[in-house]
Amino acid sequence: MPLTDDQQREIDAVRAGRAETARPTVPALEALLARALPVLDHGFVRVVDYMGDDAAVVQAARVSYGRGTKRVSEDAGLIRYLMRHRHSTPFEMCEIKFHVKLPIFVARQWIRHRTANVNEYSARYSVMDREFYIPDAAHLAAQSATNRQGRGDVLGPDEAAEVLRTLRDDAARCHDHYLAMLNEDEAGQPRDPSRAGLARELARMNLTLNTYTQWYWKTDLHNLLGFLALRADAHAQYEIRAYAEAMLGVLDAWVPLTAAAFRDYRLGAVTLSAPMLAVVRRMLAGEAVAPRDSGLSSREWAELQAALTGG
Amino acid sequence: MPLTDDQQREIDAVRAGRAETARPTVPALEALLARALPVLDHGFVRVVDYMGDDAAVVQAARVSYGRGTKRVSEDAGLIRYLMRHRHSTPFEMCEIKFHVKLPIFVARQWIRHRTANVNEYSARYSVMDREFYIPDAAHLAAQSATNRQGRGDVLGPDEAAEVLRTLRDDAARCHDHYLAMLNEDEAGQPRDPSRAGLARELARMNLTLNTYTQWYWKTDLHNLLGFLALRADAHAQYEIRAYAEAMLGVLDAWVPLTAAAFRDYRLGAVTLSAPMLAVVRRMLAGEAVAPRDSGLSSREWAELQAALTGG
Amino acid sequence: MPLTDDQQREIDAVRAGRAETARPTVPALEALLARALPVLDHGFVRVVDYMGDDAAVVQAARVSYGRGTKRVSEDAGLIRYLMRHRHSTPFEMCEIKFHVKLPIFVARQWIRHRTANVNEYSARYSVMDREFYIPDAAHLAAQSATNRQGRGDVLGPDEAAEVLRTLRDDAARCHDHYLAMLNEDEAGQPRDPSRAGLARELARMNLTLNTYTQWYWKTDLHNLLGFLALRADAHAQYEIRAYAEAMLGVLDAWVPLTAAAFRDYRLGAVTLSAPMLAVVRRMLAGEAVAPRDSGLSSREWAELQAALTGG
Amino acid sequence: MPLTDDQQREIDAVRAGRAETARPTVPALEALLARALPVLDHGFVRVVDYMGDDAAVVQAARVSYGRGTKRVSEDAGLIRYLMRHRHSTPFEMCEIKFHVKLPIFVARQWIRHRTANVNEYSARYSVMDREFYIPDAAHLAAQSATNRQGRGDVLGPDEAAEVLRTLRDDAARCHDHYLAMLNEDEAGQPRDPSRAGLARELARMNLTLNTYTQWYWKTDLHNLLGFLALRADAHAQYEIRAYAEAMLGVLDAWVPLTAAAFRDYRLGAVTLSAPMLAVVRRMLAGEAVAPRDSGLSSREWAELQAALTGG
Repeated sequence: MPLTDDQQREIDAVRAGRAETARPTVPALEALLARALPVLDHGFVRVVDYMGDDAAVVQAARVSYGRGTKRVSEDAGLIRYLMRHRHSTPFEMCEIKFHVKLPIFVARQWIRHRTANVNEYSARYSVMDREFYIPDAAHLAAQSATNRQGRGDVLGPDEAAEVLRTLRDDAARCHDHYLAMLNEDEAGQPRDPSRAGLARELARMNLTLNTYTQWYWKTDLHNLLGFLALRADAHAQYEIRAYAEAMLGVLDAWVPLTAAAFRDYRLGAVTLSAPMLAVVRRMLAGEAVAPRDSGLSSREWAELQAALTGG
Repeated sequence: MPLTDDQQREIDAVRAGRAETARPTVPALEALLARALPVLDHGFVRVVDYMGDDAAVVQAARVSYGRGTKRVSEDAGLIRYLMRHRHSTPFEMCEIKFHVKLPIFVARQWIRHRTANVNEYSARYSVMDREFYIPDAAHLAAQSATNRQGRGDVLGPDEAAEVLRTLRDDAARCHDHYLAMLNEDEAGQPRDPSRAGLARELARMNLTLNTYTQWYWKTDLHNLLGFLALRADAHAQYEIRAYAEAMLGVLDAWVPLTAAAFRDYRLGAVTLSAPMLAVVRRMLAGEAVAPRDSGLSSREWAELQAALTGG
Repeated sequence: MPLTDDQQREIDAVRAGRAETARPTVPALEALLARALPVLDHGFVRVVDYMGDDAAVVQAARVSYGRGTKRVSEDAGLIRYLMRHRHSTPFEMCEIKFHVKLPIFVARQWIRHRTANVNEYSARYSVMDREFYIPDAAHLAAQSATNRQGRGDVLGPDEAAEVLRTLRDDAARCHDHYLAMLNEDEAGQPRDPSRAGLARELARMNLTLNTYTQWYWKTDLHNLLGFLALRADAHAQYEIRAYAEAMLGVLDAWVPLTAAAFRDYRLGAVTLSAPMLAVVRRMLAGEAVAPRDSGLSSREWAELQAALTGG
Repeated sequence: MPLTDDQQREIDAVRAGRAETARPTVPALEALLARALPVLDHGFVRVVDYMGDDAAVVQAARVSYGRGTKRVSEDAGLIRYLMRHRHSTPFEMCEIKFHVKLPIFVARQWIRHRTANVNEYSARYSVMDREFYIPDAAHLAAQSATNRQGRGDVLGPDEAAEVLRTLRDDAARCHDHYLAMLNEDEAGQPRDPSRAGLARELARMNLTLNTYTQWYWKTDLHNLLGFLALRADAHAQYEIRAYAEAMLGVLDAWVPLTAAAFRDYRLGAVTLSAPMLAVVRRMLAGEAVAPRDSGLSSREWAELQAALTGG
């Protein structure tokens, strides 16, 4: 995860700069402000700034519910209650801003979370760096036979080697040609004075989707939880999940009570439909319910079994 | 602007609490964190928390435009450029959270700004305080004869006195009856043990629209500017403008470069339509354009004159 | 539910106007376009326009999942799958627009759903009609003793009669004074030529929160379901639930497959947290789990019991 | 612009299907429902559905402004007034849904417009077609010397030919290798039974950014105008502008009054800052203002000159 000189200077400045503030401050998260957490082969996640903490969630809830919240004596209990009942607005009162370096195909999934603020490095203005995501062989999986969007077994060593060679060669060749079309060297000077050089906004179309980009991404705690619930899930593509898992670590440092409630009531929770509930009630009454008598489709039956056995 | 004991305790705690942070910090805004700025007769605006500063806007713009921004040598110039060309995303990288106490009819206008986070005091859970907005006589204006949504001349002293008496009496009587229907005293105990007391969520419907409510309101700098552009404008109703003007003072303290650019390029700017521009070009060529030859409607002609004369 | 003459003319025009279209059309919903469905004592909900149908949800899902959706042979099955797994974007492809007449205190809850488009009748421009919500005696409930936001038993006849008298008198008196301060008759002419009349934007503050307002409200199907999940729920205040229930009927007419899936997987569903799931697994294994051994708080234990017994 | 068989069948079904509706209907737009408008070499824009028309904008404005709007006697005048004063909510009352086929690098710009609903073809589920955007030689421009994000002169024929060859070869080779890594033929069957085939969600990273994707994109009229104001502008990249221009044609057919007002008050309008206005006032008073006495930066001076001369 090579940082550019500019990025390293920015981080060094953060590490050096200290100021006094009357704002809510989280020491465990302060410690992460000057650290780029590595993700994948060249990517990273870094917390740039934050607003609020667990107490800010509680403070907002107490404004809304006023005297009513006096009955919930502890912050942890109130946060768990809010999380369980999907009272989302108090969680919107905290905000976090990340600097993220990520492959373009991951950025394309990520950007679908619309309630966020984004400033992405622009290939209309600047030349893209020569960095591509090349998976570990351990993550080179075959298409799943049972799940249209999933991965199956890991590829054998020969097939994996060939895939890796292809990914590397194609990304590198496309980037070489990108620079050649630009006719620009690293310092932005023309390489061949007899050529005009293609506009950056056009040349970029020759890059492959595993090229790394970067952005500042800012969102509130409620929407961050929504992102993590989807992207730290086992059904998410491994590559975006790797980012979500790094961000889960940030969540633990930032808002530990919220993070614990999130794990219990969102990540580890299961929603049972009305027909599923009916089956569970029959089971609890001692009945041995067979799939065909359950009133569930075979897919729903399988989902219920997975929920009840933790599978 | 009476603060409740709880609110005063919260502010005192802010004033007492100091922590070290590596985040961008704005001393001029820190000074405002422990102060409720009075607005109208019982309202206030208080900054609860903030994220970012002018440099954070610049930082985000430089990520987007990369090497391209090196040509704009100064932060002030870059911020002015972004403001002038409505490049809004870098301004989304700053965030601010206010505690606001305001009359319900003002809250109803304010809430139409949807890109914000809100936690309002809930009259389902808690009893509403006995505080109403009663205008200064100087703000008791007649309906404008020329503008369907505006105010005209100030009322004469007799009519004003009667209006004020009416507003005071009706608000007070409605609140008295509200408490009577609740059958609840200040401590939440039944006043008349023989009565059940109406549910709070129902009793509130008897309150008048000048009753004060309060909320936490959080938004990003871009959307704050949008709010201020509409609500600090001369066409805004005086009562919400009073809040916007207090918040403009906060803006000056928080992000002085952005605030200056905002005054030049948004608050003090005028948009000329294609037909208006055509008229200005003829004028600059020395032609004395008459309204009837301008191709503008009489309303547009008046708007153009106002723009060109600063009227 | 008296419609104004203008509203009746608009509805008559809809009933009369017929055009041919190549757009997806739902006959059962067309039948509702010219009908104002009564809600509460003077309110209504009317469908003004709509876009899409169940097939439009399926169409969008098939664009996203491409060949993958061929395995789900039927539209109903696909819609149920999307609903169960919270794949929300295909439901965003349908849109509906309502004309709603509702008390202001209900409008204040409703407007918190931010992902919607709203045009509300403006009391800055126009005079508010003399219509207030006065509950049926059957809905005049006491504050719940166990739930800070809920209702308990219905009030006794004497207390109810007094509450109704108070609500009627205060609303009427406040509106009388509102008109007097405006010094305006129904036709917008001055009532007393010697008086100026208070600006409408100020006079409105004297109205009570049960005064009726109206608006056009437009949202997509996904956000409509979110609204209905919260507002048709037993925990919602009765008055907004009355609107949600009328709109559930509209949903059934518009997108019957989606509506059926919504009832099974959202309205009738229960989310079990990780600790609750652990208890259910122990129960299914035959263990008689006692509350104190469950690892659940007493509140969570009660919620689990309610889920498992359908209470 | 080759349509797939499925897409052609869908369009044929639209052309064949006719229903009666009481909804607002726009014959000129109905005529476009069954037509894919070609954009770039393989792309298209097609209207899938719409809600509302110019009259729906007027209807919503009249609800808001009530009796106040009676003074604006004509719909066209009211729409022009709303557009000039940025009263945006009535325009949110119309909605439109497009099916768009576009290169990925264009999709990446487009998706930044967050207030829209999107369902994109998913390369996790399905295999991407072998179609790439290759510019016309006439659009192969050099990087602008004066504008960091713009294009300058068209490339000479030799350089252009080499660029086109590179773009074609690299895109084709990357797609060939993509299919090879998938080990899947067009029918989704394994090509080489001895290989597992890489998961689709991984193989896609080898594709170049000019590969075509497609999506359903739905937004309201207000946000469509915001999209067009930015993307039909001369500063927008040619490739996305080509889509915006096709959509401007749709706008003319759909809401002709709104479209005309949009051209006058948005596309053809210029915003003058406070310092620019001061200069214009001096000029109109007969003063020959020199750049150095203007109080404007050289960049602002140039922008003002451009505005006043139509340059």
